[in-house]
Amino acid sequence: MEEWSSKRLDVRTDLAVEERERFPGDGGEVSGVVLKEWKKKEKGIHLTEVVIKNEEGARNMGKPVGTYLTLEAAALEKKDENFHEEVVSELAGLIGNLLKHHGIRTGGMEREPSSILVVGLGNPGATPDALGPKVLEHLMMTRHLSLEYGAEFCQKNGYPILSGITPGVMAQTGMETSEIIKGIIGETGPDAVIVVDALAARSIHRLGVTIQLSDTGIHPGSGVGNHRNSLTEETLGVPVFAIGVPTVVGAAAIVHDTVGAMVEVLKRESGTRRYGDYIEGMEPEEQYELIREILEPQFGPMYVTPHNIDERVENLSFTISEAIHKALFQ
Amino acid sequence: MEEWSSKRLDVRTDLAVEERERFPGDGGEVSGVVLKEWKKKEKGIHLTEVVIKNEEGARNMGKPVGTYLTLEAAALEKKDENFHEEVVSELAGLIGNLLKHHGIRTGGMEREPSSILVVGLGNPGATPDALGPKVLEHLMMTRHLSLEYGAEFCQKNGYPILSGITPGVMAQTGMETSEIIKGIIGETGPDAVIVVDALAARSIHRLGVTIQLSDTGIHPGSGVGNHRNSLTEETLGVPVFAIGVPTVVGAAAIVHDTVGAMVEVLKRESGTRRYGDYIEGMEPEEQYELIREILEPQFGPMYVTPHNIDERVENLSFTISEAIHKALFQ
Amino acid sequence: MEEWSSKRLDVRTDLAVEERERFPGDGGEVSGVVLKEWKKKEKGIHLTEVVIKNEEGARNMGKPVGTYLTLEAAALEKKDENFHEEVVSELAGLIGNLLKHHGIRTGGMEREPSSILVVGLGNPGATPDALGPKVLEHLMMTRHLSLEYGAEFCQKNGYPILSGITPGVMAQTGMETSEIIKGIIGETGPDAVIVVDALAARSIHRLGVTIQLSDTGIHPGSGVGNHRNSLTEETLGVPVFAIGVPTVVGAAAIVHDTVGAMVEVLKRESGTRRYGDYIEGMEPEEQYELIREILEPQFGPMYVTPHNIDERVENLSFTISEAIHKALFQ
Amino acid sequence: MEEWSSKRLDVRTDLAVEERERFPGDGGEVSGVVLKEWKKKEKGIHLTEVVIKNEEGARNMGKPVGTYLTLEAAALEKKDENFHEEVVSELAGLIGNLLKHHGIRTGGMEREPSSILVVGLGNPGATPDALGPKVLEHLMMTRHLSLEYGAEFCQKNGYPILSGITPGVMAQTGMETSEIIKGIIGETGPDAVIVVDALAARSIHRLGVTIQLSDTGIHPGSGVGNHRNSLTEETLGVPVFAIGVPTVVGAAAIVHDTVGAMVEVLKRESGTRRYGDYIEGMEPEEQYELIREILEPQFGPMYVTPHNIDERVENLSFTISEAIHKALFQ
Repeated sequence: MEEWSSKRLDVRTDLAVEERERFPGDGGEVSGVVLKEWKKKEKGIHLTEVVIKNEEGARNMGKPVGTYLTLEAAALEKKDENFHEEVVSELAGLIGNLLKHHGIRTGGMEREPSSILVVGLGNPGATPDALGPKVLEHLMMTRHLSLEYGAEFCQKNGYPILSGITPGVMAQTGMETSEIIKGIIGETGPDAVIVVDALAARSIHRLGVTIQLSDTGIHPGSGVGNHRNSLTEETLGVPVFAIGVPTVVGAAAIVHDTVGAMVEVLKRESGTRRYGDYIEGMEPEEQYELIREILEPQFGPMYVTPHNIDERVENLSFTISEAIHKALFQ
Repeated sequence: MEEWSSKRLDVRTDLAVEERERFPGDGGEVSGVVLKEWKKKEKGIHLTEVVIKNEEGARNMGKPVGTYLTLEAAALEKKDENFHEEVVSELAGLIGNLLKHHGIRTGGMEREPSSILVVGLGNPGATPDALGPKVLEHLMMTRHLSLEYGAEFCQKNGYPILSGITPGVMAQTGMETSEIIKGIIGETGPDAVIVVDALAARSIHRLGVTIQLSDTGIHPGSGVGNHRNSLTEETLGVPVFAIGVPTVVGAAAIVHDTVGAMVEVLKRESGTRRYGDYIEGMEPEEQYELIREILEPQFGPMYVTPHNIDERVENLSFTISEAIHKALFQ
Repeated sequence: MEEWSSKRLDVRTDLAVEERERFPGDGGEVSGVVLKEWKKKEKGIHLTEVVIKNEEGARNMGKPVGTYLTLEAAALEKKDENFHEEVVSELAGLIGNLLKHHGIRTGGMEREPSSILVVGLGNPGATPDALGPKVLEHLMMTRHLSLEYGAEFCQKNGYPILSGITPGVMAQTGMETSEIIKGIIGETGPDAVIVVDALAARSIHRLGVTIQLSDTGIHPGSGVGNHRNSLTEETLGVPVFAIGVPTVVGAAAIVHDTVGAMVEVLKRESGTRRYGDYIEGMEPEEQYELIREILEPQFGPMYVTPHNIDERVENLSFTISEAIHKALFQ
Repeated sequence: MEEWSSKRLDVRTDLAVEERERFPGDGGEVSGVVLKEWKKKEKGIHLTEVVIKNEEGARNMGKPVGTYLTLEAAALEKKDENFHEEVVSELAGLIGNLLKHHGIRTGGMEREPSSILVVGLGNPGATPDALGPKVLEHLMMTRHLSLEYGAEFCQKNGYPILSGITPGVMAQTGMETSEIIKGIIGETGPDAVIVVDALAARSIHRLGVTIQLSDTGIHPGSGVGNHRNSLTEETLGVPVFAIGVPTVVGAAAIVHDTVGAMVEVLKRESGTRRYGDYIEGMEPEEQYELIREILEPQFGPMYVTPHNIDERVENLSFTISEAIHKALFQ
């Protein structure tokens, strides 16, 4: 489906794979961006690696330079009492490699493990945005054990030095999450930060079955919570990794896709391009007016979410926490 | 906006006022339905009473025979530390009158108060569907006081005889909510039931600012939870009142309205009715295909909800519980 | 430590093993009661079976006729990411055998499985009393699947027909838990009920490391919540099993044991029995006055609980839910 | 009741009034400590002010130099739908005066209001320790409004500049609460900190009916959570106020009081002081052994708490949040 016009519309996605889909063709065809795809068929897992290599690629993709790994598994749709062991293993492997690539040492190595702060971004009170906080609830923290029993305690036991915080949202604390996290980093000096967040996708097909892992942190406007500030190596001083799962689709994306589909129908049926072109040729103001009549942006962002999102978020939170455990603990 | 075709679309609303809006004109013009509207300007409250008088009206409206009161107050959008006293008073008055109309006696009357079971329908774990359970949390139950201190205790103190239950959802209990509620009614024999539920609206404008009160109970397919069974006087044996606030709009409604807006644009701009008519004249199958391409109904119902729905539901739950207290306690 | 006087004191325990300890000697020496003990040393598990055979035994023990199995494992004190697999297996075996002994069919058998209602007794808002509700949160219900897909669905998949409810507490619902449960049983007709409850022990040593399983249901005065009504085969019409873990010790038990210890010291040190006898010979009123000065019974029951009870209850809830799954699902 | 020996026993109290009770007589009789008491009879409120003036007083009391205000109201035992308005007003007055005394400016004054960080100390998952976190949930934060709308926004509206955080407990975060709070203070620079915490009392009579307000912050070993670090002006760099309500009594206090009562009985009844003296003269090791046999300190602190502590904490959290609002907002 061709994109008829998105200049005036907030048809956001936090998924690099969806940004990449806007461009036709395989890896290498978008300047500054390298795409790799591979499947683990027997596990039902489809993996993608999008590497944005330079500023040109960043401009094309609307995302910063860095690595974006996506794991997609249809099995994640159903509940599984083992929290999807194959997905956990695969994701743990991706996390471990990405951390290692950045010089972060996990538990069980020869040298002392790195200290890692995990941040559960999101609003614990709003189900689609509660993924980060829920993952934090399941994690086993260890930093206090090294405070109590000495520096070698974690190393001996194959533990990482793990701490974690759920900073809540600004309406609840009066503070930006970046202020809270910067403050904590200033006091506890971790070597790296892993942020867990709920994401917005453009397509309903991605909801709850796609996990994105990146080394570019969190950027303004991203996440279900439309984060206000950056949480990146530039702003926090240490590498910032992000793990996210899309739980909502922006309502504007739904409307946008509908209009696009309408255009296709018109083109197909009318025998000429004329009226399809008409819509495509609408002034941005008119397009915007069309969407505005339905969505009333003064209400703020509106999200489309599946009815059973609470079960999905609960299950996914265990899949992610188990993958973090598997990646960090020996 | 003319309705171009809704035969194949689930463009549901739980609000009687929205069903009534499908028909042009004032009260009396839909056979079997009487509409009354009045404002309390100084309080910013707009009230509507839709009475469906007979089966013909029920067929026209797609809702059962009975009374539907709607209270709309833009002030409900903002947080208020008094939980919107004027709305509480107004709603309490409507609740009191409707109960009285059905012979239900509230606290503070000459005779012994009626016993009332309040049901908090909905999924406590899914924020837009948690309104019912949250209201139950704030209610002051009194039935156990009459069990403990005797039948006249509540009457002397101006209390109603109030009990309450949050039956959860079928995935959590393995039981239909109607089974749980019928069973409880069989054991405790209340004179009436008040069900509190989160609703689906057709228009975003209604979300969180509209409260509906009815004496027709709960019908299959209604509510954010798409309830499977009826909770009505027919099925439960006692009068069933329902209080609800819309917290979601069905995604199909959003798409439907978009397509309708598109049709208007085409008509207006193209100078002829031709292409507008074209869309309107599409076979139902083609219209359905259009929507299906976007929404994939096999994912189940998808809902559009504002980003700050948790705050709204929290505040509304207090407004409703306070109104119930004010209506039932002397 | 000899019991100096408990006539006027509420030194309650819900554990049959602790009642049995009041009598010296091995099994068979308390009339009407048979005691068996055995260890699984390599797993660190100590098992006890107390069978109260007749009314005389019931009078001696202050507990009804029936079977009481106790599993004790010191390992339960520490957190374990496998939720204590050995304990889960052992407990699952005990549950399975006890159910089978009563003719209850679990999933995976030749015939259609029995339908079982699990009740999570207790107050979800009071941490030491939240064990039952937490276990219910982790259980996988299946009854609705048989409602949806037909009677053979569960049998084919090796599932039991499982439903569950958390009835809350009377202050929150205005109803006795027995009314709610009776009502639900009347509507859904299960073959058996399993109640999960938090218990009161007499000794701190038992807290969080002892699991009791019985086929005698719940009796008035038992549990952290001091239950008001019976949930037994007599009152509910079907076999009622109970699984519980002590999370509190009654404060009166602490005081009682202190006074007993004081008596021992006096006897030992004073060279004669005289002053120990003095205390033992105190009028019940004086003994009661002693305790009253400290505990002020008009405040209601006071409980002693470890500071990290929330972690313990969280972990134990998984151990118990996993054991129930293992016992019931093929 | 005379204190027979507390050298080896942890008979802790966080309440200055209880420490003061150890000394006979009125204010002025303990060197370095000034006591004032006054009643508001018509409101059923009893107020106490303990001022520890110097290091000698600090040594006598086992508490730091500063001011400790206690508000006691028997009415707090019962639920009240107005959250005890009189207590709210009185407490708000005490808070306002203490802040003003330290130069902190509340909302509604001529000059720009001070910025205040409220900290909800305690474990949200352990009911008796959840008071702080619950108060935070009810507070209306305003600092983000000044970030969004400019510095004069709060002043114009009579708001304080209020932010807040619930730092959780070390087992959940891997960090000391002091590290989290110091970090946040470093980033956001408040003028003062108010800590809300659940306390341990020595006597059951104080539970839930006593509110303590001080300007000395939090010291190691205090609170239900036995805090590890200080949160004081010395460690945080700004004035630290503390508001607390006792929700538990240490189990050792119960035992200690029992032994003391026993001693009294012996003295009274035996006609001589001999055996009372015997117990009082016991070697510390023997006394300790006595308590140890019952409480097994290796289990960690054990707490005695009323059975309905969840209701109490819930109600008290509103009383305290409302008092904070009344003190800070014009």
